[in-house]
Amino acid sequence: MQKVPGSHRDLLKAQFATLATVGASGRPQQSVVWFLAEGDDIGISLSNSRQKTANLQRNPTCSLLILDPTNSFRYLEVRGQAKITADEGYVFATKVGAKYGADLRQYDAPGDTRLIVTIVPERVRAVDMSG
Amino acid sequence: MQKVPGSHRDLLKAQFATLATVGASGRPQQSVVWFLAEGDDIGISLSNSRQKTANLQRNPTCSLLILDPTNSFRYLEVRGQAKITADEGYVFATKVGAKYGADLRQYDAPGDTRLIVTIVPERVRAVDMSG
Repeated sequence: MQKVPGSHRDLLKAQFATLATVGASGRPQQSVVWFLAEGDDIGISLSNSRQKTANLQRNPTCSLLILDPTNSFRYLEVRGQAKITADEGYVFATKVGAKYGADLRQYDAPGDTRLIVTIVPERVRAVDMSG
Repeated sequence: MQKVPGSHRDLLKAQFATLATVGASGRPQQSVVWFLAEGDDIGISLSNSRQKTANLQRNPTCSLLILDPTNSFRYLEVRGQAKITADEGYVFATKVGAKYGADLRQYDAPGDTRLIVTIVPERVRAVDMSG
């Protein structure tokens, strides 16, 4: 399994990432997501009602890009496969909410359920073009 | 053709975007790119030696996401098809360089050529979750 190198580990604590998934037509889609890294595991809390969730359930291949908010020449891209599990009781969503000072339930419609998307890395790109 | 709504047109002047392409294996890839908007046309100057260029030549479907650098809840995603033309004489690359105060030739290896990638929009998503 590929690891995030020391040069870019600070980005695992950043606030925002862009997630790329592949739609039913084979076209890529991107959105901005919150994430939580625990060690090298990067997790995202998604509602079952979202388009990106449907994409990942159909086709788990994805890419997560974390941009250094203070230096746009520096970023981390993790390409991999989404492993999706149920987040019953909002256990993981609560951990993510703690990082952001937010209650993720407020973003969900009645009847929504939460899923934990863990990215199993296949390729890690640590980019720094500012040198 | 879908247009960028007035609420998000300021983002066409932003500095950075993430470009998602699809690799030979069908997996999405992301990278941070410079871009130049002329009216509603969003163009990217790419060297022929880059992986993302090879991806777009094989499969022109792509997504460009422009994040508001001052408000990460607000962004523009343009999904579409890349139209690729030769940039002989670095005419477009020079325009892009003028936006960034940079000479794009300095990023190219000997023998590289420049291409103009124009995104023909199929879907424009103007997102603002900060409200």
